[in-house]
Formats: sequence, C-alpha cells, structure tokens
Amino acid sequence: MIKKFSDYTWKGVEKHIYKENPEVFRAVTKQVLFEHEGDLPVQFRYFEVDRDGFSSLEKHEHMHMVVIFRGKGHVLLNQQVSGISEGDLIIIRPWEWHQFRADEGEKLGFFCLVNAQRDFPVYPTKDDLRKMHENPAVHSFLQGQSGPREK
Amino acid sequence: MIKKFSDYTWKGVEKHIYKENPEVFRAVTKQVLFEHEGDLPVQFRYFEVDRDGFSSLEKHEHMHMVVIFRGKGHVLLNQQVSGISEGDLIIIRPWEWHQFRADEGEKLGFFCLVNAQRDFPVYPTKDDLRKMHENPAVHSFLQGQSGPREK
Repeated sequence: MIKKFSDYTWKGVEKHIYKENPEVFRAVTKQVLFEHEGDLPVQFRYFEVDRDGFSSLEKHEHMHMVVIFRGKGHVLLNQQVSGISEGDLIIIRPWEWHQFRADEGEKLGFFCLVNAQRDFPVYPTKDDLRKMHENPAVHSFLQGQSGPREK
Repeated sequence: MIKKFSDYTWKGVEKHIYKENPEVFRAVTKQVLFEHEGDLPVQFRYFEVDRDGFSSLEKHEHMHMVVIFRGKGHVLLNQQVSGISEGDLIIIRPWEWHQFRADEGEKLGFFCLVNAQRDFPVYPTKDDLRKMHENPAVHSFLQGQSGPREK
C-alpha cells in the first residue's frame, strides 16, 4: 500500500493543527503516517513546526526516534542544545527533557517513531524551568535565540 | 543522541555494500540507523540503490514500512508496479512479493522499518517467476523497463 507524498502532505492522511495550547507548543502540525499493524507495534508520524514555532518541552518514559525531513532548527536534549538539519537522526532516551525549535528562519519537519503504547509526557515545573534557564545555552534556546540573531 | 547526516551517510554509522549476490540484488548499500533499544523493538535502516540497481525480490511474514528519502524509481507489490519518489510511504504487508528498482536514471534511497526479530525472506522459484512474467507490467518491471525507455 502506497501513500503518495506531495508538498509535505500524504494522500489520505489527515493533518492535525495544534492550536489549543500556545503556552506549551506553537505552530505545529501532525500527520500520522503509520499506526500499529502486524509485527510493527509503533506509530510513525510527521510533525512540522512553522518558522519560529516549537514543540512542547517534555520528558517521558517512552523513546523517540526522529529523522529531520525538512529545514533546520535546534533541539534541546536535557542540557544540550544542538543545531539540526535535514537527514539528522535524533534518539531521545527515557526521561530526557526535549524540545524542537524552528529557530533558523524556516520550517522544521521531522518524522518521529514511538511505541504504539506509551506513557503521557511530563512538563517542566516552574522550578525545573528555573534550573534550565541557569544554563546560558539552554536559556538562549528557550528564548528562541539559538538561531541567527539578524533575520 | 544525534547522528549527523551528510551526503547520504550518517556519522558513526557503517555503510555495508552488498556485492555477494548480483543475481538477487544489485548495487545496494545499507546503513543501520537505529537498532532495538528501550521500548522501540525495531531496526531502522537506510538503503540506497544505485542507478539501474534493484533490491531483492522477496516475501516474508514480517512487515516493512518504507519512506523514500532520495530519488525515484518503481516498486513491485505483488502484481502491482508503481512509480515512487521522495516522500512516498510504502507499507509492505506479510507475504507480499516486493522489489525496489532504481529504474528512473537516478539513485533511489529509502528508510525501511522492520521488527528487530523477524523471519528470513523467501525468494521466488522458477515457477513463481514464470507466473510473474505473465503480467506485462510486472514483466517490464522485472526487465528494468518500467522507467523511461530513452535515457
């Protein structure tokens, strides 16, 4: 079975737009490309973060395997901020704080693999956030300032 | 953990070149990007088929989820020949005959997800092949003639 791709959408796949919680994430769409079938007990999704948008800052027991499919930006993995661009593979291990930001002046699109059965994310408390901001690189990232300053 | 991508290779990932069996497949490389870890009991690989090359014609109990990452070509799914290009998602179900061919004059690269534990492929018998060739579209495909005739 083939799902044809065109302009970052897949035929027959619904695109969900998150608008409910701009405090937690911003300008993110989600398309579920594969849902648990046969011997593949996983969900495979495509997320797209619009310019200057970001995914939720969260951690959880379940793992992510991510491949960047479009554009560039930055990812936070615990205390580490890294530039990411097309083709990069990111493995997010249990209980690692993580967030993706499209802070390079373009859209950031990525595939994300998870187990079909998984726990709910945990979000940072005010105290967690205060500790994160103590690290200058993380502080800049969370302010959306890891990308180029001149736009 | 990040594996940086550059020129269709990933840092720290070994590229395997299949040369052992030109009767079965031709000009295919494999890079294993993710191997069973935590709650993701899967292997995620990148295969690249050189111009005019092809993957093995096979079927098995285990499933494949494939995303085309580079170039174009054709895929055979049982009796169906389809053009494929970047971004297309292909779900290969248990016991479907399948083969990928880079028959459009360029390289064909794709991600392929499988369960970490899986059965061995079955290859066609002479009788299977005879039956496949009875279908004109499948016949052209197997001769590497689904792509443009003028090159």
